[in-house]
Amino acid sequence: MQNFDVEKLHPGLSIDCVIFGFHENELKILILKLKNLNKWALPGGFVEVDKDVDAEAAEVLKRRAGLENIFLRQFYLFGDVARNENDHARKMVDQEVIAPELRDWFEQRFVTVGYYALVEYSKVKAPTPDYTSESCEWRSISELPSLILDHRDILARAHATLKKELNNQPIGMNLLPDHFTMSELQALYETVLEKKLDRRNFRRRMLSYDILIPTNKRRTGVAHKAPMLYEFDRKKYQEAMVSGFRSTW
Amino acid sequence: MQNFDVEKLHPGLSIDCVIFGFHENELKILILKLKNLNKWALPGGFVEVDKDVDAEAAEVLKRRAGLENIFLRQFYLFGDVARNENDHARKMVDQEVIAPELRDWFEQRFVTVGYYALVEYSKVKAPTPDYTSESCEWRSISELPSLILDHRDILARAHATLKKELNNQPIGMNLLPDHFTMSELQALYETVLEKKLDRRNFRRRMLSYDILIPTNKRRTGVAHKAPMLYEFDRKKYQEAMVSGFRSTW
Repeated sequence: MQNFDVEKLHPGLSIDCVIFGFHENELKILILKLKNLNKWALPGGFVEVDKDVDAEAAEVLKRRAGLENIFLRQFYLFGDVARNENDHARKMVDQEVIAPELRDWFEQRFVTVGYYALVEYSKVKAPTPDYTSESCEWRSISELPSLILDHRDILARAHATLKKELNNQPIGMNLLPDHFTMSELQALYETVLEKKLDRRNFRRRMLSYDILIPTNKRRTGVAHKAPMLYEFDRKKYQEAMVSGFRSTW
Repeated sequence: MQNFDVEKLHPGLSIDCVIFGFHENELKILILKLKNLNKWALPGGFVEVDKDVDAEAAEVLKRRAGLENIFLRQFYLFGDVARNENDHARKMVDQEVIAPELRDWFEQRFVTVGYYALVEYSKVKAPTPDYTSESCEWRSISELPSLILDHRDILARAHATLKKELNNQPIGMNLLPDHFTMSELQALYETVLEKKLDRRNFRRRMLSYDILIPTNKRRTGVAHKAPMLYEFDRKKYQEAMVSGFRSTW
């Protein structure tokens, strides 16, 4: 068990990361299996008093998934008192996941800052468990095991936020190959939104956002008419990530 | 000076509210003038350990502006270390704004949860200062005095968030009269976005959101052709507040 010096930590503050993984039209999340407990948790951690909160979240993504410079968005501070009404700390001590002297630290009232990221999970070599956990795995969001505390709520809110933000900002960089077809982009949206979309409306909408550049290449090796390949206009893509789609005001 | 029992408060956690006021096509914010200091601050406060964070923010809005059941959105946790590198606590003690025994409390590292609200400020009877401040006033966002700490950054991020969210959710309830013209709605958008919009594009876009109901009434007493009055479809408006505009997927 790794010791940590609670004196160096911001009291009552934690972070939790919902790391969505997209691969072959499936959406998964990265979760940790806690040692000696038949329970799973979102990757997360605490905040050192001399570290920026957003930087600590980036550290979680780096330590658990080996990923750096990935889009990671803070989406909500979970601050309800009810999330602390649980016997999680007691169980962690009983099952020797944490040392008894840390029980007071774990039993204080915590608020937690939620972050989400979306990555191409085939690029993640080997997800790494932390000192409280025995494994770190990608699991389909439709078949999740039991999660500790309010982690299921945190996941649900992250997914709802991601769906909502699709109305206002692009998605796909780092998830699709550099050159992709409109059908491949649509499949990504359908996976995240969990619904089928109309092909013609989707195409019209995507083109109106003015973030796609048609290449003169076509996908070869497909049975019928070879579809056009697109790439993202990186400058306009990044602008839309900051300010939202503005083409229509 | 009001005493408060720091033992009852969540350590290192505060809230700050950016209360935007709209009236006659002007955007203002509510700020407090600190006692004995020629400095202004956003309304805010601390979080009692047995209270929900979002509920404490609603309390700030109620105590400072007398407003309840107003749309109030959490938008960001400001968690950089640099925001604490200041001599604000020392000045507060020196100027007898707070008692010397509270200095340790005020000098700990704080993270603050930012909220924003948008209200019709003619409905706010008398903004009420807190125990650290001598007045509470509406000030135009284009002519603000010097604000403490990172409150100017918090305001800027709140305004940027509000502008961005206009791409994805409605605005206007509680700000416009129950029946309003398309021009009045457009004027609200122009005030928040700080730019002029094309009349025809604006109208087309608003109608596509499917949240407006045309009434059979017209605004009378105007010089030329009497414009149509609209009202919000309250159910669809509330749905869009939660899930974003979905009309086009």
